[in-house]
Amino acid sequence: MIQKLITNIKKTNAPIVVGLDPMLGYIPESIQKSAFAEFGETLDGAAEAIWQYNKKIIDAVYDLIPAVKPQIAMYEQFGLPGLTVFKKTVDYCQEKGLVVIGDVKRGDIGSTSAAYATAHLGRVQVGSQLLTPFGEDFATVNPYLGTDGIKPFLDVCREEKKGIFVLVKTSNPSSGEFQDRLITDSASVESSVFEGSSSSGNTAAGKPLYEVVGEKVAEWADSCMGDDYSYVGAVVGATYPEMGKILRRVMPKSFILVPGYGAQGGKAKDLAPYFNEDGLGAIVNSSRGIIAAYKQEKYASFGADHFAEASRAAVVDMIEDINQALENNF
Amino acid sequence: MIQKLITNIKKTNAPIVVGLDPMLGYIPESIQKSAFAEFGETLDGAAEAIWQYNKKIIDAVYDLIPAVKPQIAMYEQFGLPGLTVFKKTVDYCQEKGLVVIGDVKRGDIGSTSAAYATAHLGRVQVGSQLLTPFGEDFATVNPYLGTDGIKPFLDVCREEKKGIFVLVKTSNPSSGEFQDRLITDSASVESSVFEGSSSSGNTAAGKPLYEVVGEKVAEWADSCMGDDYSYVGAVVGATYPEMGKILRRVMPKSFILVPGYGAQGGKAKDLAPYFNEDGLGAIVNSSRGIIAAYKQEKYASFGADHFAEASRAAVVDMIEDINQALENNF
Repeated sequence: MIQKLITNIKKTNAPIVVGLDPMLGYIPESIQKSAFAEFGETLDGAAEAIWQYNKKIIDAVYDLIPAVKPQIAMYEQFGLPGLTVFKKTVDYCQEKGLVVIGDVKRGDIGSTSAAYATAHLGRVQVGSQLLTPFGEDFATVNPYLGTDGIKPFLDVCREEKKGIFVLVKTSNPSSGEFQDRLITDSASVESSVFEGSSSSGNTAAGKPLYEVVGEKVAEWADSCMGDDYSYVGAVVGATYPEMGKILRRVMPKSFILVPGYGAQGGKAKDLAPYFNEDGLGAIVNSSRGIIAAYKQEKYASFGADHFAEASRAAVVDMIEDINQALENNF
Repeated sequence: MIQKLITNIKKTNAPIVVGLDPMLGYIPESIQKSAFAEFGETLDGAAEAIWQYNKKIIDAVYDLIPAVKPQIAMYEQFGLPGLTVFKKTVDYCQEKGLVVIGDVKRGDIGSTSAAYATAHLGRVQVGSQLLTPFGEDFATVNPYLGTDGIKPFLDVCREEKKGIFVLVKTSNPSSGEFQDRLITDSASVESSVFEGSSSSGNTAAGKPLYEVVGEKVAEWADSCMGDDYSYVGAVVGATYPEMGKILRRVMPKSFILVPGYGAQGGKAKDLAPYFNEDGLGAIVNSSRGIIAAYKQEKYASFGADHFAEASRAAVVDMIEDINQALENNF
């Protein structure tokens, strides 16, 4: 699937991903009204509104972009009907040839992590059948629980040729609270005994946690290679370009998924360090800035009824903005 | 809800929680066969088998225990039908008077974390209606993204009088890879600027990450108090009792959810330090050890057809094991 992502990026010349993170407040009233008329002011009604909204945006932008990133939380908050629309969205985007990154940020241990990997990237055995639960192409994964939490995802990635993006340095203001803390030692004795390996060594003296996590990502990436890039990527926020520069070097074989562009404050001119010299290696996300473009002054003239055309215009502008910044830097 | 948890613990004299983490391999063949006969070897068939299995176990043990902890990954791997049974299980347990801890380990930032908090603990606005998506009483939360990821949960906890357990030190072998690393500094300059506060200071010099996270949990807990305990608890694995001792002191107002007892190797004699002198403050989880008890030699005589009675016997034994260990230590 990393190969398909690369092919799609080359085909569109657009190293971007559109975040399908719908909020009811983004959805034009006419769509909400018609969904509520059919299903009532229920979870089903909300889910139907989201589905109609998503579908129109996907139809308007799919030929311009390589990938989408639906944020499952935005669907999960509408319960089972919401998750039904998450699944419909995944399927519909794949039918349109898009790579689907499930932004699920799951992470657990052992058999539980294996269950999450199965849920989002794999197939589950039921009697004699192998069935697909959600079937995204990539998933985002939280590393706090260590290798135990990641390994089951690697196994599924190898088997299904799918991929993960591990959270390394997130785009939010308080991401430094733990991620930036300086580390002095190798892992403590008690854990080393359990690990039964010396993998950590003393290599991390004085490094921030995100770099230690990045080094682990590089290890996991090496064990799970596609042709030029690994199935194992990383999430590094656009809001921390200095750290992006370091992490690009630490994880040379990993695609970096870059949130934080646009609405969160990340600028195109800061994005060059996230890419490799081959012009690949990063994919920049925008959610609100695309799907709710019609609410911005710049695209307001489209009006609520033409929200999907506004999204298309915003995609065109984003691609130009990023490609221009990259040209100036290479 | 922390009050209800405490009331339930006192009523049952059982500081334990049963993890409802069903795997198809645990479910007696007769139940699987009958579910597949009705729904085929489909996700619906698997979900039905899980539901029948859960229901029998809940019916057999609910009067002995204060709380259950369904692990959502085990349901998510069966897609939408699996999650439908997750929701049915939550509802059924609440009808039986049990406190339900959704083991969801969610964690994201800003509006996304708010969506997860709404999904699992809150109510979502749809038109003029406030609707309940999943409606657990507590949820487990991952702290890697910092306060931005936790604050939306705190807001919902205050509004709905519900609670969270933040992952601090997990029970798995490789949890030390990041959680045990020694921290020397305060949060880095760049992040402190964004945070706009000096909350971290220099208090963490030379402390392991789990302790730094524990200190944050204590801060969050202070801001979200019930009568004697906070709505904000922590997860600390039974497999690391020395760390449990330290973390008990660091987070005096937090209930500690303790996984890792039994199947993962945690012993009752090591559990005393997780409790406060009032005999409260911790709740010990067992999943496999209870729900698949009939597969252990000790309970094999029950046979697969009487798996729920085996679970009841295992609950009785676990309560006795833990209470005896606590008596010896107080």
